[in-house]
Amino acid sequence: MTKTITAGRFFEDFTIGQLIEHATPRTLDDGAQALYLSLYGGRFGPQSSKVFAQNMGFSDRPMDDWLVFHTIFGKSVPDISVNAIANLGYAEGRFLAPVYAGDTLRAVSTVLGMRENKNGESGIVYVRTEGFNQMDACVLSYCRWVMVNKRDKDATIAVEHVPELALYVPATDLVPPPVDFQKFSAVESGSATYFEDYICGEVIDHLDGVTLEDAEHMLATRLYQNNARVHFDGHAQASSRFGKRLIYGGHVISHVRAMSFNGLANAFSIAALNAGRHVAPVFHGDTIYGASEVLDKVVFDARPDVGALRLRQRAFKNVSFQDVKEDDPSSLILDLDIWVWMPKR
Amino acid sequence: MTKTITAGRFFEDFTIGQLIEHATPRTLDDGAQALYLSLYGGRFGPQSSKVFAQNMGFSDRPMDDWLVFHTIFGKSVPDISVNAIANLGYAEGRFLAPVYAGDTLRAVSTVLGMRENKNGESGIVYVRTEGFNQMDACVLSYCRWVMVNKRDKDATIAVEHVPELALYVPATDLVPPPVDFQKFSAVESGSATYFEDYICGEVIDHLDGVTLEDAEHMLATRLYQNNARVHFDGHAQASSRFGKRLIYGGHVISHVRAMSFNGLANAFSIAALNAGRHVAPVFHGDTIYGASEVLDKVVFDARPDVGALRLRQRAFKNVSFQDVKEDDPSSLILDLDIWVWMPKR
Amino acid sequence: MTKTITAGRFFEDFTIGQLIEHATPRTLDDGAQALYLSLYGGRFGPQSSKVFAQNMGFSDRPMDDWLVFHTIFGKSVPDISVNAIANLGYAEGRFLAPVYAGDTLRAVSTVLGMRENKNGESGIVYVRTEGFNQMDACVLSYCRWVMVNKRDKDATIAVEHVPELALYVPATDLVPPPVDFQKFSAVESGSATYFEDYICGEVIDHLDGVTLEDAEHMLATRLYQNNARVHFDGHAQASSRFGKRLIYGGHVISHVRAMSFNGLANAFSIAALNAGRHVAPVFHGDTIYGASEVLDKVVFDARPDVGALRLRQRAFKNVSFQDVKEDDPSSLILDLDIWVWMPKR
Repeated sequence: MTKTITAGRFFEDFTIGQLIEHATPRTLDDGAQALYLSLYGGRFGPQSSKVFAQNMGFSDRPMDDWLVFHTIFGKSVPDISVNAIANLGYAEGRFLAPVYAGDTLRAVSTVLGMRENKNGESGIVYVRTEGFNQMDACVLSYCRWVMVNKRDKDATIAVEHVPELALYVPATDLVPPPVDFQKFSAVESGSATYFEDYICGEVIDHLDGVTLEDAEHMLATRLYQNNARVHFDGHAQASSRFGKRLIYGGHVISHVRAMSFNGLANAFSIAALNAGRHVAPVFHGDTIYGASEVLDKVVFDARPDVGALRLRQRAFKNVSFQDVKEDDPSSLILDLDIWVWMPKR
Repeated sequence: MTKTITAGRFFEDFTIGQLIEHATPRTLDDGAQALYLSLYGGRFGPQSSKVFAQNMGFSDRPMDDWLVFHTIFGKSVPDISVNAIANLGYAEGRFLAPVYAGDTLRAVSTVLGMRENKNGESGIVYVRTEGFNQMDACVLSYCRWVMVNKRDKDATIAVEHVPELALYVPATDLVPPPVDFQKFSAVESGSATYFEDYICGEVIDHLDGVTLEDAEHMLATRLYQNNARVHFDGHAQASSRFGKRLIYGGHVISHVRAMSFNGLANAFSIAALNAGRHVAPVFHGDTIYGASEVLDKVVFDARPDVGALRLRQRAFKNVSFQDVKEDDPSSLILDLDIWVWMPKR
Repeated sequence: MTKTITAGRFFEDFTIGQLIEHATPRTLDDGAQALYLSLYGGRFGPQSSKVFAQNMGFSDRPMDDWLVFHTIFGKSVPDISVNAIANLGYAEGRFLAPVYAGDTLRAVSTVLGMRENKNGESGIVYVRTEGFNQMDACVLSYCRWVMVNKRDKDATIAVEHVPELALYVPATDLVPPPVDFQKFSAVESGSATYFEDYICGEVIDHLDGVTLEDAEHMLATRLYQNNARVHFDGHAQASSRFGKRLIYGGHVISHVRAMSFNGLANAFSIAALNAGRHVAPVFHGDTIYGASEVLDKVVFDARPDVGALRLRQRAFKNVSFQDVKEDDPSSLILDLDIWVWMPKR
């Protein structure tokens, strides 16, 4: 006799308005922070140095924002996307409070919308996922939509609804870290490039390439307690359309983030995830490169110490950015739209 | 001139009754805990969340029981099994107290028995290994027996003795963690399946497969400070009968443990290791799967909050559990008999 | 429009006497310590056990000396050697104070000398690099010289000067850790071999071999925040003379250090780096072995508890030390000259 165990939700198992509390809460610690650093090689000041962080007013080194994102995302996987065919997009993502070693995060999702696909075999589910710390402060909130198989082609759903999601987070909704960016040390960060030095439209080639490894992306994906099978089971994947393990898209996001130190060394904190697409799959052995384009610049009356840059951050595989041909999109793997905080002079 | 350095004990170097204090004591910390989590992807509640753990009465997140086991085991390797031909079996293993970040563990083994093999070239050594924390509390005690080469075929030993080891640990000898399982949170663990829901004889397919990597098993084995050469030296292994590095059997145990969250999400704590065999070797590139069979269920008058489940936990390679043919044992790699603690409703 | 970002210094960008404060300071924590241990498998007592360390007078487990070295070295890479053709040598390296979890390290380099190569295309730059903790205590000081390309073949430099560097650090300049080596526990370290037991001229084969992995050396090199491209970018390296990613030489140093436990178990602390050459490159799949030769032994009137051993520590690839033919240097990859501290009886 085989005990039936949860194999994740199918399309018809969701309901609009449904609130899902995800297992398992997670205490992030020095170990997670060190391992994350080793996986990507980040060199942003406050994340690297307690002294640097505390000089600005952080109580300790803040966790890298994407580590927080992937941790919250990972919690949602068993409930939302373990059966997903594709992770289609992100919107309205905001980082709302710093996370420190010792903080315990939990995640909750709300189903915002559902739309069945014409073939009747799958549908798209829209959710807002929020992460909270042990004081019940919301540290992250974002929307994503995923394509999920139906268990039963004939199943129907009560209501279809496609939520209206902002094309990007309005600058007025951004929540700056509660620290003094005037105390940011350009000597210690190694870069004297400030908010004022960036120009809308400029494109920054982050130069460094990194070759991805199965052992590394699996370590990373488990660090986030993300159990999506496609990342781990090489035997099952051998008969999939890809023929091998797929690398978690967030692994690429974090690599590009670390690379972006070269050109954006003082942008240590992410304000928002406006939009993002994992354009093409990435595998063991692929070498990835990144570049950022400045889309917008915003200042805030109440915060003369810091501005926000809106960036289009793209990643490419197996061709360095300077060799990418704009009319050949075949190497593009990630297209991200984010706001970052940048100290003013 | 070459300084002779210890190359480990051979069969005739052991004596029944001998007590061996193993080097080197080890402080387990947040880093070990985070790395262990990243190697296996565990999602059990109290190990993952300090809040969850403290709500039950733990003083902090307890270390995963197998991390404690592998650490103590690793300490015994240079003295007991660095020259072993095979690790033959386990018995009478009991987990006796929680281990937390900051605790320092040391290991001591006692030789329980010895039996020479008929060919005169090797013999079997039986030891009990115990792990103690910095307060000298015993946190783990288990027996194992290993086949060890003789240095000198003509060497004789004083006494032969095969100890009588229990087939399994009697439930009355199990020591439950000193916490309140009624405060276990099924919402946070993500599973409403309690002790009462398991039936003797049922078999749980843990579904998830994971492909093993040289880089990962070596990181893990060094995390345990286990220096057995077969796991690390690909050059020497190339001329061995396997032709390549062998994966530490404990690495498979920990993977199956993490997989077992799917079906046994509330069994966060191991009570005993009754028996275990590493049936076949495992290598880089193998994909492993696991399943658990409920062998027995026991309740305790003094502890209405928790019961013990006896499980047969098996792992298979390169075939998912649903495709395993019961009359074809070729894919079986691990056959473990354990007691786990399970909260009662 | 492409923003010009720093691509590192070329030969003519250096000036003798120039002081370079390196980005980014780094807090080393339990996580870094655990990951370092897992990468190399170190078993030295005080680094492994807080109890062992505190019994000697350390305030906590000291970080492994090479972890400190690689961290300081890594900080200097973007400013000194990201464009280097070769890392030619080390001299006058001294470890001056223990580093503990929670300490924040920063690095500063001074240009000691410069010499143009005859071909006019490159030159050699000599620097002293110093590491400081958050109390501004110097924890490490060492010299190295690197060959760096010129940006412009016609560029000239103001002054050429080759500094005179000591062949080895005089024993009188060594700074012993501020602890009592009489309280070193030979039972806990597993070795009763003390300072008195080593003889000048003896050679110790460390026996264990370890096969190197791309995933591991990249994790390590990023742990040190060392961003030298040759270690990470397999796509660009494919068209280099090596055809593949090059392993950071410090990764080999740390592996040999961990191996040296077998024969030098009580030499838990490094006093000085006298000299060192990375003789040949090392790649994924290579298996490395190590051996140490005792070059000198020194005692100190003021410190009857501890002596210093001067060691020549060599590493070889794909041939075990006992199979190395002294007239065939092709397998030699590392030739290091160090002082280590060794407890006296």
